[in-house]
Amino acid sequence: MPRLAIGIEYAGTAFCGWQSQVHACSVQEAVQEAVAVVADEPVSIVAAGRTDAGVHSLGQVGHFDTKAQRDERAWLLGINSNLPPDISIAWVKPVTDGFHARYSAIERTYHYLIFCRRVRAPLFHSRAWWLREALDVGAMQDAAGVLLGEHDFSAFRAAQCQAKSPRRELRALSLRRVGAFIVIECRANAFLHHMVRNIVGSLVKIGRGEADAEWLRHVLASRDRRAGGVTAEAGGLYLTRVSYPAEHGIPDPAAVIPDDL
Amino acid sequence: MPRLAIGIEYAGTAFCGWQSQVHACSVQEAVQEAVAVVADEPVSIVAAGRTDAGVHSLGQVGHFDTKAQRDERAWLLGINSNLPPDISIAWVKPVTDGFHARYSAIERTYHYLIFCRRVRAPLFHSRAWWLREALDVGAMQDAAGVLLGEHDFSAFRAAQCQAKSPRRELRALSLRRVGAFIVIECRANAFLHHMVRNIVGSLVKIGRGEADAEWLRHVLASRDRRAGGVTAEAGGLYLTRVSYPAEHGIPDPAAVIPDDL
Repeated sequence: MPRLAIGIEYAGTAFCGWQSQVHACSVQEAVQEAVAVVADEPVSIVAAGRTDAGVHSLGQVGHFDTKAQRDERAWLLGINSNLPPDISIAWVKPVTDGFHARYSAIERTYHYLIFCRRVRAPLFHSRAWWLREALDVGAMQDAAGVLLGEHDFSAFRAAQCQAKSPRRELRALSLRRVGAFIVIECRANAFLHHMVRNIVGSLVKIGRGEADAEWLRHVLASRDRRAGGVTAEAGGLYLTRVSYPAEHGIPDPAAVIPDDL
Repeated sequence: MPRLAIGIEYAGTAFCGWQSQVHACSVQEAVQEAVAVVADEPVSIVAAGRTDAGVHSLGQVGHFDTKAQRDERAWLLGINSNLPPDISIAWVKPVTDGFHARYSAIERTYHYLIFCRRVRAPLFHSRAWWLREALDVGAMQDAAGVLLGEHDFSAFRAAQCQAKSPRRELRALSLRRVGAFIVIECRANAFLHHMVRNIVGSLVKIGRGEADAEWLRHVLASRDRRAGGVTAEAGGLYLTRVSYPAEHGIPDPAAVIPDDL
């Protein structure tokens, strides 16, 4: 059966996460239902990253197989007109059956937003992690270097994580201050469950002056989740890009986050 | 009675606008109720701008009179803990009774967000005006100059506008492209009802190549609302700053929108 890849954006606030669950509203289910209307047959969608409840996407990639023949425009407009306003399909593209949204992916990028101010920001409710105090971004960035490279990230892994191996290659972990926000970019071949949020929680402990880079090195070496900081809030996390070998021709996520932000 | 000024931020999506209405949920009512809990007496709040349903604020300013004596921290934390997550008080400050949130204001700034892409952006649903086509921002900026200065803005005024005079001084109208967004900044001594949204609607007609600066000059001169473009969506509009004479010591809105955006 022909295979199609799709780019999926969503505001995760109202969903139980990507993956279908009994008695809960998932992004997967909403997208499958919308695609099924256009395909006129049930479909099953595989995504690159199974984002948690409340986590947003600007760059999720999925694939599905279907007998239905539609042109790209008919798929795109048809699926979007059957989705709620908090989900949209950014693009649709035919791929070979050698493409798999999850297993073909060679890199994932997440962005995490922290908002630092004495009082909360209504326009960023569920969109950023609100912290009442200023953080030392320089100290956080210095410590971040400790985590770069291939490591056993068990210390930043949720108890319910189903990955076979706890080893991941962290390729970038950079922080920028933008007004009252701290924007954290995190790039790896793949991530363990809660890995970005657990890393951010530990960096925040350092930003508060309660710990330092040496502590972070010990946390990593301990492979013990209890050694690190808290798990950062889901609402601050955005899946922004999934990369594939060029041969698949998967488009880059649309420029919703401007490059200079 | 002592008078207090407050800075009010809100995501306007769930509200009928600033002003209290029968059978509708207003920002004014929510803030008055929260302040009343802290003041332990009913209060009436006057705001600088009566924003419409769906319009957001990063810089609304209000004032109220109360016999209650609290320190600034008690007011700020107390009011915020009695507000829903889509409203917050950014600051509280004692002012003289010579200060009036509406009548002392000498300038208002609004920002308007347009998002241009074939498909909608879930994370900007109700936060930006989604247009499917690219716009000629250069042409829009060139035409914007026509509206600068003091004019009779009747052509950009809603039928239900209650202002005595249709004359306003437009001091800035600038456009910037940021990724797939167009950010429009609009500054005037004061605005008529729907004035920013009607100006944006006419600029978009120019951005689409359907009209030019000369047409905009005619619209302005006509003083006829029917001559202009459509009214831009409420969700793209943000009240970002209200300015007062320095003697009142009113703080600048917190840096929620970074300067470089």
